[in-house]
Amino acid sequence: MSLEFSKKLSGHTTPIPGVVLYDLPVHGDNRGWFKENWQREKMVALGLPDFRPVQNNISFNEKAGTTRGIHAEPWDKFISVATGRIFGAWVDLREGPSFGAVFTAELDPSQAIFIPRGVGNAFQTLEDNTAYTYLVNDHWSADAQGQYTFLNLADETAAISWPIPLDQAELSDKDKAHPRMADVAPMPAKKI
Amino acid sequence: MSLEFSKKLSGHTTPIPGVVLYDLPVHGDNRGWFKENWQREKMVALGLPDFRPVQNNISFNEKAGTTRGIHAEPWDKFISVATGRIFGAWVDLREGPSFGAVFTAELDPSQAIFIPRGVGNAFQTLEDNTAYTYLVNDHWSADAQGQYTFLNLADETAAISWPIPLDQAELSDKDKAHPRMADVAPMPAKKI
Ligand SMILES: Cc1cn([C@H]2C[C@H](O)[C@@H](COP(=O)(O)OP(=O)(O)O[C@H]3O[C@@H](C)[C@H](O)[C@@H](O)[C@H]3O)O2)c(=O)[nH]c1=O
Ligand SMILES: Cc1cn([C@H]2C[C@H](O)[C@@H](COP(=O)(O)OP(=O)(O)O[C@H]3O[C@@H](C)[C@H](O)[C@@H](O)[C@H]3O)O2)c(=O)[nH]c1=O
Repeated sequence: MSLEFSKKLSGHTTPIPGVVLYDLPVHGDNRGWFKENWQREKMVALGLPDFRPVQNNISFNEKAGTTRGIHAEPWDKFISVATGRIFGAWVDLREGPSFGAVFTAELDPSQAIFIPRGVGNAFQTLEDNTAYTYLVNDHWSADAQGQYTFLNLADETAAISWPIPLDQAELSDKDKAHPRMADVAPMPAKKI
Repeated sequence: MSLEFSKKLSGHTTPIPGVVLYDLPVHGDNRGWFKENWQREKMVALGLPDFRPVQNNISFNEKAGTTRGIHAEPWDKFISVATGRIFGAWVDLREGPSFGAVFTAELDPSQAIFIPRGVGNAFQTLEDNTAYTYLVNDHWSADAQGQYTFLNLADETAAISWPIPLDQAELSDKDKAHPRMADVAPMPAKKI
């Protein structure tokens, strides 16, 4: 892992409205490194919505090529990597003119990304033992999953260039069964 | 790492008032595992204070034996491990009858611990490449560090049995310079 240390905290817009990519300062020393992964005050000053997380999730991905997504849920996500590296892919699934817009980027621990509700989220790990961590501002529920919006990782319209082809990647059975774009119900503004 | 999957979410009191150790459900599958590392609603129902984080920090520790602490700061911490394993040590540095009380425990990703403000926090990693993650409910500041309360990791009164002796451990110069118990000013209630 060649991690860039001591970047300045900054936010960068992307082709998907509201999706903002952050550079995070990472402080390296004899012990390893330290980062403020999310810091409300400094990030609000940079224009991040005043995000009030109620849940912090971590997924651990054993093998490079593990792929999860594409999940659009009715809450915002602030996503980053605790260790390892990912190829992230985001697809706008909100009803409206930007429906279908795609953005992809590699993320290491010196980056983070804000994903507003209704934007589909997915990633593929580029290293073994990648820990993916995110904050959300509403509570997930097993029962409500039927109301979330999903898109197939292999969708031909989004046409995401996964670094590791999906037939060689580790996926959940649930993710293999998500619909193609034509069968996705855009997430309506009222849910957003 | 032999991680126990699908424990029931539960909280356990410790010898330090307000310090609560949590067992977290971790869901294992073909991809690795997933956990709700912090979930406000479920944890408040279990008695966790209604913790409103404003900062999420991650430290990455390259070598087993990396040791950080003992730091008592004027905010609460909800601490866990994204990957790897730690020996955690906590020393009550609050003014009052429990001043000096010590609690130690090994934590893997299926545990978390709530540390109220004024309780000294420290850990030693038991595996290489351990990612330590925590949420806090106030903002750290470089300038305010002079007001935080520190105790030396080697303090003879706390007498923490570090699994890896401190002279073989990786420490910061700052942590090597912290005072012994006799020279610690207990954190006054007004700051708490
Ligand atoms: C998302 C989630 C899952 N779970 C449980 C359900 C399962 O037993 C196990 C794994 O759930 P899955 O939905 O298969 O996890 P997953 O890793 O495939 O899901 C995640 O993928 C990311 C791409 C999205 O951005 C996330 O929002 C989330 O949907 O964890 C929770 O307990 N709480 C949660 O918040
Ligand atoms: C704690 C902290 C440090 N930093 C910077 C300052 C340094 O450049 C670098 C490393 O800081 P240090 O104080 O040496 O990190 P550290 O890992 O020794 O400090 C941590 O130790 C834990 C045991 C405590 O519980 C934490 O609250 C914190 O004090 O990170 C931040 O930018 N924000 C923060 O919140």
